[in-house]
Amino acid sequence: MISRVLAADLPSRVGQHVSIAGWVHRRRVLKSVTFLVVRDRSGLAQVVTTGPGVPEETVISVSGLVVANPQAPGGAELTSPAVSLLSAPSAPPPFDLYRPGYSATLPTILDNASVALRHPLLRGQFEVTAASAAGFRSTLDSLEFTEIHTPKIVGSATESGSSVFGVSYFGRRAFLAQSPQLFKQALVGVFERVYEVGPVFRAEPHDTGRHLAQYTSLDAELGFISSHVDVMAVLRTVVAGMITSATPALARLSVAPPTVPEEIPSLHFTAALELLGDSGAVDLSPAHERALSEWALREHGSEFLFVTGYPMAKRPFYTHPDPTRPGYSNGFDLLFRGVELVTGGQRLHNHADYLAALAARGEDPEPYASYLDTFRYGMPPHGGFAMGLERWTAGLLGVSNIRQVTLFPRDLHRLNP
Amino acid sequence: MISRVLAADLPSRVGQHVSIAGWVHRRRVLKSVTFLVVRDRSGLAQVVTTGPGVPEETVISVSGLVVANPQAPGGAELTSPAVSLLSAPSAPPPFDLYRPGYSATLPTILDNASVALRHPLLRGQFEVTAASAAGFRSTLDSLEFTEIHTPKIVGSATESGSSVFGVSYFGRRAFLAQSPQLFKQALVGVFERVYEVGPVFRAEPHDTGRHLAQYTSLDAELGFISSHVDVMAVLRTVVAGMITSATPALARLSVAPPTVPEEIPSLHFTAALELLGDSGAVDLSPAHERALSEWALREHGSEFLFVTGYPMAKRPFYTHPDPTRPGYSNGFDLLFRGVELVTGGQRLHNHADYLAALAARGEDPEPYASYLDTFRYGMPPHGGFAMGLERWTAGLLGVSNIRQVTLFPRDLHRLNP
Repeated sequence: MISRVLAADLPSRVGQHVSIAGWVHRRRVLKSVTFLVVRDRSGLAQVVTTGPGVPEETVISVSGLVVANPQAPGGAELTSPAVSLLSAPSAPPPFDLYRPGYSATLPTILDNASVALRHPLLRGQFEVTAASAAGFRSTLDSLEFTEIHTPKIVGSATESGSSVFGVSYFGRRAFLAQSPQLFKQALVGVFERVYEVGPVFRAEPHDTGRHLAQYTSLDAELGFISSHVDVMAVLRTVVAGMITSATPALARLSVAPPTVPEEIPSLHFTAALELLGDSGAVDLSPAHERALSEWALREHGSEFLFVTGYPMAKRPFYTHPDPTRPGYSNGFDLLFRGVELVTGGQRLHNHADYLAALAARGEDPEPYASYLDTFRYGMPPHGGFAMGLERWTAGLLGVSNIRQVTLFPRDLHRLNP
Repeated sequence: MISRVLAADLPSRVGQHVSIAGWVHRRRVLKSVTFLVVRDRSGLAQVVTTGPGVPEETVISVSGLVVANPQAPGGAELTSPAVSLLSAPSAPPPFDLYRPGYSATLPTILDNASVALRHPLLRGQFEVTAASAAGFRSTLDSLEFTEIHTPKIVGSATESGSSVFGVSYFGRRAFLAQSPQLFKQALVGVFERVYEVGPVFRAEPHDTGRHLAQYTSLDAELGFISSHVDVMAVLRTVVAGMITSATPALARLSVAPPTVPEEIPSLHFTAALELLGDSGAVDLSPAHERALSEWALREHGSEFLFVTGYPMAKRPFYTHPDPTRPGYSNGFDLLFRGVELVTGGQRLHNHADYLAALAARGEDPEPYASYLDTFRYGMPPHGGFAMGLERWTAGLLGVSNIRQVTLFPRDLHRLNP
């Protein structure tokens, strides 16, 4: 048997007998000839045959002679073919996968994900995601971060009691982790620099285009920082590495990668409010974020903008205050094209500061006991950040509903497929 | 301020003034001099000072002059130091972290993971894990697999009803995914070749050294195979890539990497039973697996052994039968040092075969409806495998209890830290 070659390899095989395999992407029956366009992971290949051919999405292997033809995809096609059936579909796809664009609505795509995502434009989105995650890891690997895998089932709902999923755990009540925050901080004490790529769970009652019940969180945390500014510098390097890694996948979708400025512009929260002419605001609304992003693009030519120094009252208890303005934090958000893409900052690192922070908020330290213990044993100044991978891809591709860039989304209404 | 250098860099900085930062790993107060051994992510550095020094696990930064000293770790030490306190511990660690070995019991280690894992021998285990996962991904990337992220909350308990965790999902009943099996198969239809590194959940009532309620599953699946033998070939390449990637981390623990034979020896299930002299057995017990591994080592000099052709009755419904011996499957296990490390095989790919397989088992197809739909649209012959990452590391390091190589294990009794 001739071993399989990929569609993309045909142009380099002109004059040879080869075998390809894939899905019938498009069948075109003309008077004297039938074209079968075969789709595999590398692209499309044209097969010239006679007779009725087989319907779209039939899985076949084809042996034949490669002949140059400037009109064929890639400039070569397979002639005198012997077609073998590998699997016959029993139903047509819910919409035409062979058209350059797709007209299906988002619910149709999501309900039929395992076939709908075969459309090259939809599949290509997830290649951007995969390449971005690879860039996240390789950048952090080069900065000597260690990859970790932390529990997704936790004993207490630490970050925000209202939006957690309950799990029945061997007769006990447990919860799905909303973030690896407490674990990644603890592991700074072990590895100094850690990252995790993994699912997080939010029982979000919001039915918006920005929220999912499960998403993939890109988390990083590092010790021996001077302040959040060191974290922002690492984040800038990571974002640039993710874009570099995703650029070939973006090019296949004809999407230009954004430019990351050498120094991403940065605004303190108070300066942001002044700019917005809304000095009474206690947090930034989505409309504020859009306006600030427009400002950064206009004034600095940057699609990225750091907002720093959010009020302590609006940040979690583990947030480190700004030593020079204690009502404001050493926390930041990274805005990208009008949307909050990353949240991060410096964390408290002294045990006594944690107890004081919880007491000041009137919170019981007991649910945090094993987490707080970590800070008894000497923890360096540290900080980190978290980015939603689906939100990242949506931003790169200009997709407004995050569900479109999630393989099998989970939300208020959707638990299938 | 002099920017920080790592402990491992000191030997190349002799004669220079530098600044290091880390934890006091060991304080030794002698009559006229005090040694502080400082631990950072790169290793250990000796600081020569006077006075009482600071206790172990204090976080400090130290500026000083690097002087050659053959007796110091790495052959250089920091003299005339200026020590700055970054964080003082409020309690000593539960056991001495500076001793070359550790005497702590596993429960002590697990209860105090965030400080216990600072011991270089324990920390080093997780560097083996991280490097192995990186090797898994890079090997599959080079084979043109696409990384996927699939739902961990599912609507029906598909694989085995008894050992799933229930989740309260917006007022509905849902479950934690026991594997990405059904999703990764569906996505072969989109990407041809996929992998996932992610948590899976098993409500295992077994209190053994081999089982956890959550572990990290390394899953791969690929289309256009001839049989399970193609999957085994990919797996062999992946295992070799993981070992190559983990070798430096193993060397730091003085552990020799196993050798992967160019062709891993393989035994059919029926031949294995014959060899064991237990032809009546319907499955392999742990004792059988140990005996077979001993045989492979003795007869083939291999620590790896494939067992193929397990009886169909013992494999899941999606398993592809052996066309030449339909009572036996195109499924395999990979044994490593007496333990089942990987399970894999060829899957059914025709819609009608799925309906027949479920009917033959008396199973209702309804819970699988959206999964089965995938097979209506043309799916190639495909197969794949899954490996537990923690079990892999335990095997490499010769650790008998998988909890020791899990950062924060979850089991029947343990939900903390």
